[in-house]
Order: sequence, then C-alpha cells, then structure tokens
Amino acid sequence: MKDVAERAGVSTSAVSFAYNNPGRLARSTVEQIHKAAEELGYVRDPAARMLRTRTTRNLGLLLPQPIDGIFANPYYAELIAGIGQVCTREGLFLLLIPPLKGSLAKSVPVSVVDGFLVVGIERDRSEIKAIQRQRMPFVVIDGDPLAEVPAVGLDEIEATSEVARHLLDLGHRDIQLLVFESGQDAGPSGWHGTLLQRYEGVRKAIAERGLTGEVRLRVTELPCTREAGSQGVRMIWESGDRPSAFLCFSDVIALGALDALEECGVDVPGQVSVTGFDDIPEARWARPSLTTVRQSIRTKGRLAADRLVDAIAANRAPDESFMRPEHQKIHGSLVVRDSSGPVQSPRRVDE
Amino acid sequence: MKDVAERAGVSTSAVSFAYNNPGRLARSTVEQIHKAAEELGYVRDPAARMLRTRTTRNLGLLLPQPIDGIFANPYYAELIAGIGQVCTREGLFLLLIPPLKGSLAKSVPVSVVDGFLVVGIERDRSEIKAIQRQRMPFVVIDGDPLAEVPAVGLDEIEATSEVARHLLDLGHRDIQLLVFESGQDAGPSGWHGTLLQRYEGVRKAIAERGLTGEVRLRVTELPCTREAGSQGVRMIWESGDRPSAFLCFSDVIALGALDALEECGVDVPGQVSVTGFDDIPEARWARPSLTTVRQSIRTKGRLAADRLVDAIAANRAPDESFMRPEHQKIHGSLVVRDSSGPVQSPRRVDE
Repeated sequence: MKDVAERAGVSTSAVSFAYNNPGRLARSTVEQIHKAAEELGYVRDPAARMLRTRTTRNLGLLLPQPIDGIFANPYYAELIAGIGQVCTREGLFLLLIPPLKGSLAKSVPVSVVDGFLVVGIERDRSEIKAIQRQRMPFVVIDGDPLAEVPAVGLDEIEATSEVARHLLDLGHRDIQLLVFESGQDAGPSGWHGTLLQRYEGVRKAIAERGLTGEVRLRVTELPCTREAGSQGVRMIWESGDRPSAFLCFSDVIALGALDALEECGVDVPGQVSVTGFDDIPEARWARPSLTTVRQSIRTKGRLAADRLVDAIAANRAPDESFMRPEHQKIHGSLVVRDSSGPVQSPRRVDE
Repeated sequence: MKDVAERAGVSTSAVSFAYNNPGRLARSTVEQIHKAAEELGYVRDPAARMLRTRTTRNLGLLLPQPIDGIFANPYYAELIAGIGQVCTREGLFLLLIPPLKGSLAKSVPVSVVDGFLVVGIERDRSEIKAIQRQRMPFVVIDGDPLAEVPAVGLDEIEATSEVARHLLDLGHRDIQLLVFESGQDAGPSGWHGTLLQRYEGVRKAIAERGLTGEVRLRVTELPCTREAGSQGVRMIWESGDRPSAFLCFSDVIALGALDALEECGVDVPGQVSVTGFDDIPEARWARPSLTTVRQSIRTKGRLAADRLVDAIAANRAPDESFMRPEHQKIHGSLVVRDSSGPVQSPRRVDE
C-alpha cells in the first residue's frame, strides 16, 4: 500500500479510499492509483480482506443433494428467494453448498461462510456436528429441531391434519398417501422428522373425526419428482385396487399424479381426488388446479436467514448475552382448488 | 497446531490428517485430536486455509438482479443446474452474487471466489472491468462476447430465425414480437446483445423467405414475467388490432400470453399462434403445449463452468501458455407443439 501510494504520489489513505470508497476521490486520482497498483502487480486478495474484516459476506446453504439435482423441486427456488430477501437487505451473498463425496460433513470445514442454513431431513446430522466443531452459527430449516439451535419450520402436524380433515369431510375413507422417500425400508415405523410429523397429522385428523378403524390408509414412498409421481399413480391405478383420494406430501408428486390420471382418462375429482403440499406456482396453473397446503416457503427462508444474521452478529459480539435459540413455527393453510371433491357414493366401478 | 499435537499426544502431521484426511487415522485418534483442539479453543479458520491453499472452492455467479427476484424466471434454475454438474464433478460450491447497492461492480471486489460467471445483457459491463482489475478468471454467458474473454452463448440469430421461419411457413404475416425489456426507450434501434441478435434472426428469416415488406412486424417490450405477458397480451387483444401470431422472446412471457388468451376465450392456435423461447419445463405442460426454441440452458451452464474451471487452472499455473479465449456457441432447436398452427385464411373477424 505504501509502495502504491508512493508510486501514485498520494497518501496511503487515498489508496485505501481508491479501493474501499472511490466516490471520495476524484476519478482521475482513482485511476492513477489503480494504474500504479497494476504496474506494481498489486492485486487485492480476498483472503487478506477476510483476515482483516473477519467476514466473508457469505451465508452458506447446505443442500442435501448435488446442485444439479436440487432445482428439480421448485421448493428450493422458493426457499432461496426467501433467503435472498435477507441477502438483498443486508448486502450478503449466498453460497450453495452440496455434499462433497456424498457427505455434507465434508463440505462444512471447507466452506467459506459466516454461518450455515441447514435444510432437510437427514437422520444422523453429521453435518451439524461438523458445524458445531467449527463453532459456526447456524439455523435449521425443517426437520427435527435441536434444543440448542435456532430453527424455523412449518407446523407440519397441524398443516397435514388440515388437508386430511378436508378429504375426510368430503367422505373419503380410502386414502393413499404418496410420500417422498425416507431412505429406509421400514415404512412409517422408520420415519422421522418432517415425514413422521406429517403422518402424525393425518392420523390426528382421523382420530379427531372419530374415524379410527374406518379409514383405509395406504402409504407409498416415491422419489420426489413429477415423473415418479406419475409412474407411481399409474401403477396403482392399473392395479385396479384404487383409493378414492391421493394425499401427496409434495406438489411435485401430486402434479405427476394428475398427469397419470389424465393419461388414463380418469376424471379428477369425479373419480378420484388429489391433494398436494407446498403450493408451488405450478399448483395454481395445473388442470384441474391443485388443492394443496400453502406453506410460505419464502417466508420460511426469510425467517431462517434473519435468525442466521442475528446469530452471526451475536457471535461477533460475544459480550452480548447470546440469543436464546428459538424454534419458530410458521403455519400452513389449506388452499382448496379443483382437484378435490366429494367421494362418489355409491362408488362407481369404471371400466 | 503444535499445541494441539502436544495436548493430544500425537504428531503435528496427525493433527493435519485429523482435519484434512481423517480416514487415515483411527477414529479414536481423530476424536482425541478434536477434543484437544476444542479444549485449547482452536477453531479452523477459513481465511487462514484460503491463504494457505490459494483456493476458495467457490465459483461465483454474478446475477443481474437481487437473489429474491432471480428465480421468477426458471432460466436461472436451469442454468444453475448446468453449473452444478461441474460443481458436483469438481467438488466445488457456487456463490450467488447479486448486485450490491444496485451495482455488480461493487460486488466483485468483496466476493470470495476463484472465478466468475457473468450472465446477462448489461450494456456498460462495469462489473467486467472490476473483474479485470482483480485479475480474476471469468467466463461470459450470453450477451455480447468480448474478444479477450471466454464466452458461451446460444446462436441467437439462427435459433430465432428458425422459429420465425416456422411462423412464416404457416402463413403468418402479422407477427407481434413480445420481448423482454431493453432498459431503453429507443425500441429495436436501442437494442444490443441477445435482444438485438434475436431481432436480427427474425428479420433474417423474413428476408430469406423473400417476404421483406410483406410482413407486419410489431414489437412490445415487457418485464420478463408471466403476469406481464398476460397483461400485455390482454391489452393488445382488447385493442382489436390483433396479430395472427405472438412470437415471444421468453417462455415465461409466452405462458402469460396463453393465460390471457384463455381468459379472453381465444382459441390457440385456431385464432392466434403463440411461440416461446427457452423450453422451460412448464412449456411442455402448458395447455396448449407451447411451441418454443429449446436452448439447452443446462448445457450452456455446464460448458461455461467447464471453461471457468479451465481458466482457473490456467491462472494457477502461469507457466502454461494461457488458454486462448474461446467463444463457444450452442445451437437452439425448434420444438413444435400445439400452440402454433396455420394462419386463418380468409381471416375470420371474431366478436
């Protein structure tokens, strides 16, 4: 810096201004300083800046899958939009961090960020142990919250109860759940986190309506893609053993269900009802438009990023009493559209 | 590190292994070292690692808009998916870098990355000057390529010619272009980059078919959103001065056009044809399904990230002869679906 100042014939503070606040100098002075710096081979070094400022300007989003697969589910675009609102307000950037060699725990120590947002439903949570080892601030989105860590999530039980009550009140007693894969083979007894909470929500609704024992509840796990939803429903439909409603744990799966039913010439909701979960933008444009649970994924992203910004600030100013970790719940709401209707009575046997 | 080794009763290289390659040590040894480090208050420092390794593991994607707005256009999800393929292969992370205080040039110097991907159609390109000042590797996606910089883009002229020829061959002579905003008020004479190239593609097709002077070509600039497409088409339709085809420079705008035409009770393609650009996933599921130009946005993202990884490697090994900047063109292809058809002849006057 001294060398640059000398060569440009200015003070060292002018050199600092030229890079950090060029508006305070005449344009020609800035150019002169840049020229001198270039001639001397002086290049700004982000690592040096980080050591000085102790900040990377980056929030880290730990993704449960590789980046190239993540946007097959529009959930992530919405979540990132919400996080992005906070980035815009705070002047921060967002680092998308996929697993390295299949493990997020490997990604954590090499991530250049000021804090982490952790999404998803992993069971062992080795990435959380890795973050704790780094003593980095983090916030958990969805999944099973940990007592000592701030978390933001949907009230899954209540939201799923609401859509299940809707179907029960329409007379449905033969409900097929289409859920995203748990990664285990044990069925509901092996579920945890979001999946388990939603299942409990369905059972809560059945109990509340006094219908325990009267509802046939079947469960199929599927990859969370439109194609998988379509194939799964086609197989179920062609088997002949057909439910009166498909209650899907994801809009993406539900849209696939609508595709398959249309291809099979099945009237929705005349012959079968379909409900989704998330209210992604496509849900509204589907034909028939999709009854679903709106969770403001964007709000969830925004709240989680807000909490993380707070946690980072608390981390930097250790004199302040550390924020008590808060578990924030957002509420879902049922959006009734055209894909759900009264059960047929007496049930018609088609074909 | 010496302190940790001493406290844990191991060698300093064991400490290094514990953090960089724990598989080479017994699990109990790794835990012992972590415990010793924690007791001593030893926390790994990403800035220190960066100074040592001279790598951040981050590719930077410079976004022309704030993160919260960017995913309204599914283009970015696709582009990021393509970049993500390279991240997965190379074990890299992706930093989403929006403008700071409205300027990407301000974002560049504070971004902790090994190189930049630059998207978009900005004219002044002050962010490119900022990158060059940092002596960082970068690759330009779309827009006007610069001679000295690697670039990846669609062959815009050829791709747009193809969709225009399709409409001309169906008999359309009154074509309304719906294009994204140029940020200027001058109409086509103020266009540059992608917008100008596509406009040239349309005019090339008209000239090739020997129809210069016989085609009425109107142009409307719109924000690149579904709502704007819908509102724009509704206004044009209600004005009564109706084209026989809407040639849209974006699927998002075209889907909005289909929404408006359906609400107005207009038969597509019976009364008017609509074409899009990009072939985003929704184009296939629209009713009627959308005739569009498929550009593999994913391929473009992948190729650009490949080039950037090469450029970063070349930058690190300055003895190698520096890669000659390459301007790589990908080809679009017309996907004919249900939203385009023969012009009505004689043209019916509806309503």
